[in-house]
Amino acid sequence: MKENTLLTKLRNGETAINGWLSSASSFTAEAMGLVGFDCVTVDLQHGLIGIDTALPLFQALSIGNTIPIARPMWNDPAQIMRLLDSGAYGIISPLISTVDDAATLVSACLYPPRGTRSYGPARAIMYAGAENYYPEVDNQILKFAMIETLAGLDNLDKILQVEGLDGVYIGPNDLSLAMGYMPKTEPTDKEVLDMVQHICDRAHAHGKFAGMHGTSGVSAAGSAKKGFNFVTAGNDIGLLSAACKSAVAAVRQS
Amino acid sequence: MKENTLLTKLRNGETAINGWLSSASSFTAEAMGLVGFDCVTVDLQHGLIGIDTALPLFQALSIGNTIPIARPMWNDPAQIMRLLDSGAYGIISPLISTVDDAATLVSACLYPPRGTRSYGPARAIMYAGAENYYPEVDNQILKFAMIETLAGLDNLDKILQVEGLDGVYIGPNDLSLAMGYMPKTEPTDKEVLDMVQHICDRAHAHGKFAGMHGTSGVSAAGSAKKGFNFVTAGNDIGLLSAACKSAVAAVRQS
Amino acid sequence: MKENTLLTKLRNGETAINGWLSSASSFTAEAMGLVGFDCVTVDLQHGLIGIDTALPLFQALSIGNTIPIARPMWNDPAQIMRLLDSGAYGIISPLISTVDDAATLVSACLYPPRGTRSYGPARAIMYAGAENYYPEVDNQILKFAMIETLAGLDNLDKILQVEGLDGVYIGPNDLSLAMGYMPKTEPTDKEVLDMVQHICDRAHAHGKFAGMHGTSGVSAAGSAKKGFNFVTAGNDIGLLSAACKSAVAAVRQS
Amino acid sequence: MKENTLLTKLRNGETAINGWLSSASSFTAEAMGLVGFDCVTVDLQHGLIGIDTALPLFQALSIGNTIPIARPMWNDPAQIMRLLDSGAYGIISPLISTVDDAATLVSACLYPPRGTRSYGPARAIMYAGAENYYPEVDNQILKFAMIETLAGLDNLDKILQVEGLDGVYIGPNDLSLAMGYMPKTEPTDKEVLDMVQHICDRAHAHGKFAGMHGTSGVSAAGSAKKGFNFVTAGNDIGLLSAACKSAVAAVRQS
Amino acid sequence: MKENTLLTKLRNGETAINGWLSSASSFTAEAMGLVGFDCVTVDLQHGLIGIDTALPLFQALSIGNTIPIARPMWNDPAQIMRLLDSGAYGIISPLISTVDDAATLVSACLYPPRGTRSYGPARAIMYAGAENYYPEVDNQILKFAMIETLAGLDNLDKILQVEGLDGVYIGPNDLSLAMGYMPKTEPTDKEVLDMVQHICDRAHAHGKFAGMHGTSGVSAAGSAKKGFNFVTAGNDIGLLSAACKSAVAAVRQS
Amino acid sequence: MKENTLLTKLRNGETAINGWLSSASSFTAEAMGLVGFDCVTVDLQHGLIGIDTALPLFQALSIGNTIPIARPMWNDPAQIMRLLDSGAYGIISPLISTVDDAATLVSACLYPPRGTRSYGPARAIMYAGAENYYPEVDNQILKFAMIETLAGLDNLDKILQVEGLDGVYIGPNDLSLAMGYMPKTEPTDKEVLDMVQHICDRAHAHGKFAGMHGTSGVSAAGSAKKGFNFVTAGNDIGLLSAACKSAVAAVRQS
Repeated sequence: MKENTLLTKLRNGETAINGWLSSASSFTAEAMGLVGFDCVTVDLQHGLIGIDTALPLFQALSIGNTIPIARPMWNDPAQIMRLLDSGAYGIISPLISTVDDAATLVSACLYPPRGTRSYGPARAIMYAGAENYYPEVDNQILKFAMIETLAGLDNLDKILQVEGLDGVYIGPNDLSLAMGYMPKTEPTDKEVLDMVQHICDRAHAHGKFAGMHGTSGVSAAGSAKKGFNFVTAGNDIGLLSAACKSAVAAVRQS
Repeated sequence: MKENTLLTKLRNGETAINGWLSSASSFTAEAMGLVGFDCVTVDLQHGLIGIDTALPLFQALSIGNTIPIARPMWNDPAQIMRLLDSGAYGIISPLISTVDDAATLVSACLYPPRGTRSYGPARAIMYAGAENYYPEVDNQILKFAMIETLAGLDNLDKILQVEGLDGVYIGPNDLSLAMGYMPKTEPTDKEVLDMVQHICDRAHAHGKFAGMHGTSGVSAAGSAKKGFNFVTAGNDIGLLSAACKSAVAAVRQS
Repeated sequence: MKENTLLTKLRNGETAINGWLSSASSFTAEAMGLVGFDCVTVDLQHGLIGIDTALPLFQALSIGNTIPIARPMWNDPAQIMRLLDSGAYGIISPLISTVDDAATLVSACLYPPRGTRSYGPARAIMYAGAENYYPEVDNQILKFAMIETLAGLDNLDKILQVEGLDGVYIGPNDLSLAMGYMPKTEPTDKEVLDMVQHICDRAHAHGKFAGMHGTSGVSAAGSAKKGFNFVTAGNDIGLLSAACKSAVAAVRQS
Repeated sequence: MKENTLLTKLRNGETAINGWLSSASSFTAEAMGLVGFDCVTVDLQHGLIGIDTALPLFQALSIGNTIPIARPMWNDPAQIMRLLDSGAYGIISPLISTVDDAATLVSACLYPPRGTRSYGPARAIMYAGAENYYPEVDNQILKFAMIETLAGLDNLDKILQVEGLDGVYIGPNDLSLAMGYMPKTEPTDKEVLDMVQHICDRAHAHGKFAGMHGTSGVSAAGSAKKGFNFVTAGNDIGLLSAACKSAVAAVRQS
Repeated sequence: MKENTLLTKLRNGETAINGWLSSASSFTAEAMGLVGFDCVTVDLQHGLIGIDTALPLFQALSIGNTIPIARPMWNDPAQIMRLLDSGAYGIISPLISTVDDAATLVSACLYPPRGTRSYGPARAIMYAGAENYYPEVDNQILKFAMIETLAGLDNLDKILQVEGLDGVYIGPNDLSLAMGYMPKTEPTDKEVLDMVQHICDRAHAHGKFAGMHGTSGVSAAGSAKKGFNFVTAGNDIGLLSAACKSAVAAVRQS
Repeated sequence: MKENTLLTKLRNGETAINGWLSSASSFTAEAMGLVGFDCVTVDLQHGLIGIDTALPLFQALSIGNTIPIARPMWNDPAQIMRLLDSGAYGIISPLISTVDDAATLVSACLYPPRGTRSYGPARAIMYAGAENYYPEVDNQILKFAMIETLAGLDNLDKILQVEGLDGVYIGPNDLSLAMGYMPKTEPTDKEVLDMVQHICDRAHAHGKFAGMHGTSGVSAAGSAKKGFNFVTAGNDIGLLSAACKSAVAAVRQS
């Protein structure tokens, strides 16, 4: 089957750059697949994308060399399995608070006997190739648990020991709220920043990857410097809105 | 009926800043309607938007204060009328080469006895308000003829004298090609640049508005300085792709 | 092939009641197909429906016993043929002003040698049945020319003599505008009302059917009394908006 | 952030009139947003609307002054959060049978520390305005628990004491079935009618709002007279079908 | 209400032939509804169809005489109820492992007092007819539990005794995986084949129907010979891909 | 830019096998792109696909190695240009009857100074690559004129001499009708068969390619034997319906 170059890169110790897709336009998705991101995340939780509109996005992302991954609306095995059937090569699952949550995620991504994924990779074998899809795919799906709740922080070390989990991904807005601060996609509160670094370090201590959300290249570069292996450099609507506002300002000021 | 603030601004001598929408995402459209553009153009010619996907875009653009306008796929009265029925408050019609072309455009935008628009403003009266829609709307629709062919250049002065036409809009790619140069959205060839200025000046000489396409705020600011009244500061896919590439580069370089 | 019960009814001298669909919801279409209309018109001119969204509407209308017909965006053979391929059993073509216009409409609805329709009834034979589709279908498609322009009024008798045309359909808004009055879906100006009756009478004098647009059952009943064979009793958005306003008023007043 | 005028009205002791949307047409939604309803409910449970088709409906409802609210397919935090992210300003959650059910609903609508809503109001801040969205939004979302099961009746008083719940909403079909009667959207059985009044009274006794489903303005006016603060005056497909049947009957009878 | 001819056939001891729909095209759905299948299953689990795209498929399947049924994404009451409201006349629920799972399925398909289905058959009464919908529908919905996990095998006899369950349906891929073999839609391993026959026989021993998945007419005929009452003869994408490959090969070889 | 391997194959004297897509499912399109066709034609004339639904089809076809081409709804420059902007690498234009028709087709596919294509290859440069898109693309677009009318037959030799036209494609249904026979996708009338051969031979005499429509691999192999360079081996709905009917028959007969 087709190699998950994102996982290969991470396993080789390289830093992966992620783009974030929150609008359900296959034209936008194709464009984001061609700008150089190592992977693009189709966001079904806070992005305005559902199971039905996600399909053409995965197809559009398959045209270039980027790796399509997804964030489900919930840590829901049914939706995770369906996203994998649609061609996602990785899952970033939100609000993982317990070992059970993490184990549910991992199990949904692996076929028996390792897990409980139901077999029916309708489009996945079009993307990946049918040859040796099973059992190779079990080693080719990235599985990231989002750490963003108080319980998730409490259980961090245990979650990081769940077999099959590839790493953790920080959602800074929810993390800030959980810690009693205003929600900030780019945290500035020292306690939150310290916790971000702590999570990164604990992931590494357990031999797992650490991923960090972000709104820009500058932010992602900063996360990479902190040691994060997987850094998000912004989402489509955020980057576009910022670019438009700059463009309008450039004209108004002249 | 609701005022066309774009036309008011132009008629008051102010410069209008236009955003360009080429993807069929109502989420993207709503975002572009909120960043400060005086108007946003839904592009059915080279954008990947058709009559069916245009409706939610006009609705999304109606939420904020920007003015929704449209470029039809062709200088086609049927499509122009339908775009107006959908709530467009202006039409930028492509490839206007003759007085007849321009007269067709104007006629399609005006109800009898001034023109030939067929009456049935299904959604337009939801956007504009039903009160006095007719006959006020005849004075509220912006009509721009695109000048981008050799014949259009030859007939420029005659086109500018077509009654009811509000102005001309330059498509720099086609204009460059027509003049024997490589297509460039941001022209650099002196002969093309001179022609751009010439078109702007002739429009003003005839008491009409001049509009210029562009890919960025810097470009639009430059056009404003040249005297253009209506300047486009980039399109969604172009601005997003550029922002993504910058973000990726920022991480790679660090 | 499946009988066009609408045409049968008209040919038997009965009055047909038409519903008008202007929103692209297949759920709404199915509902309108089940309320007792002899036919439902999918409106691509002023309705917010295009070629792509029309397909599920024709399918939804095929579930009940109503006959699906269509108004194209323009008197355009390409779109008329495509609507017939999609399963429309009748065409009400807008803005017919000349004999040529009417002949174009008729020709687009008939296969060679009678007309110029291109053969490829992809979905039509699913709806109608493949057996004897050709040549029977040539006798099963309703063809109505809309009379609503000054030229159309001038050429009325000639248009009514076009072979193969089944009748005329009045668009009261455009007719009013053409005659110098305010656009009114329910005309009240005597000159317009007289013209409406005149068109009906001329159609009958030529042995053709006469159809009249309308916004309610009361209006349609009135048209039936005037002799119209085909009467429209309102469109989805209009009827729904009126019903909602009544409902709100009923609560506010109590 | 933008005020929830529906909540303000309810808190001021006024009766709110609700419209019910069950078809996934943004044109229909925009029309329903302009007829005078205080709010319109996008129904994902029995309406034929899902997460993907709901987005343009919320956008269309945002154009006018009505307040968009939603009924999720289930009392599911993932879907409730996503509806709030899409711009819903209220949730009517079905089949609330226990205190836990009600607490789940409330928690899903509030950010930490009050609840468990995950932060990412992608479109919500476009609709509501980003300024002070957090924490003000916690006080701006209407939360109604549907009472329609035997368990819900048993636990009514306890449910009404759940902190943060704004009120209850009666689903008369399920309530009738639960009580051993035929399902009726407009109940006529005395025992059911008594229970409807009882629920309304208990809500008021606990200082909560009472909402009642209904199929027409007459029905909603009746509910208002019984003391309900929030009355539904019909849904799109029901009102349209009734209007169409009346229109057809008017012609047939004449 | 409209008879469920599929159930009638099964109850009469006849073998039913099922088609499987995994793409969200209403044109494909209509075509599959007209080729002679007794029923067609809209697959939301491994097919690329969701709640939003399923609606036009049910409508397209309603045009012919086939019976529309559905496989939900999960044994989820919310989705099962919604599929029934959309017009499904049967449910094949995946991954049924316990008596509780099976009871949940049955309960979601029956109205109180027999089950917990919430009342709101928005489109179902358009398809089925409103007359006597309740309570007749409780006897008209096919309910199949998929047996495809180790736990499901262990609990087979208990599951088959769940009141209201009509039968079991075998998913051969997951069954193979569960039993330690490679996933095969057409099993060849003796142990799996024996288990397939065993499940069929146990279903019959309990007076329940047995259904078997398959990829072709030959496979389905084989299952019918083994005694299965309900046999699937392939899915749209599989049959089409095979037909295309054959067609290409026919040309290449010549 | 990316090579048009279809054109290369034809120019090398090899026979190209074409698949035909008439349903608007991107999942079906992706499947058809992976079965071995040299190219797949997205049919906007008789297929139930429009400008809006065509986009995800082109994207899905871009994933594999097949070449995406299109048949527009009409020989309409606006639609042809838009299809090229969407990523089509070839155009099969219907109902070409005159030299002017053919010249219009060719002109719409070429940029100035060779033709009149308007510049704005929004998605085309994503598919083809931006590098040297202009002017290389002028040599990379396949242009086929459909010969299927009496006038087209009369003007065959003149049409074949139009500079830039790559060849002709026969529509056997319309051709049969034009010649006075029943429409047959697989002609059996000797006069029609002779004409098919004649058109093929005349194309070759003028150094142009000859293409033939067909419904199966056997049919396409037959056309290849007659000398056709480009042979269609069936369309999605036709091949699927035939496969389903065979599958049903296989079960019924057993």
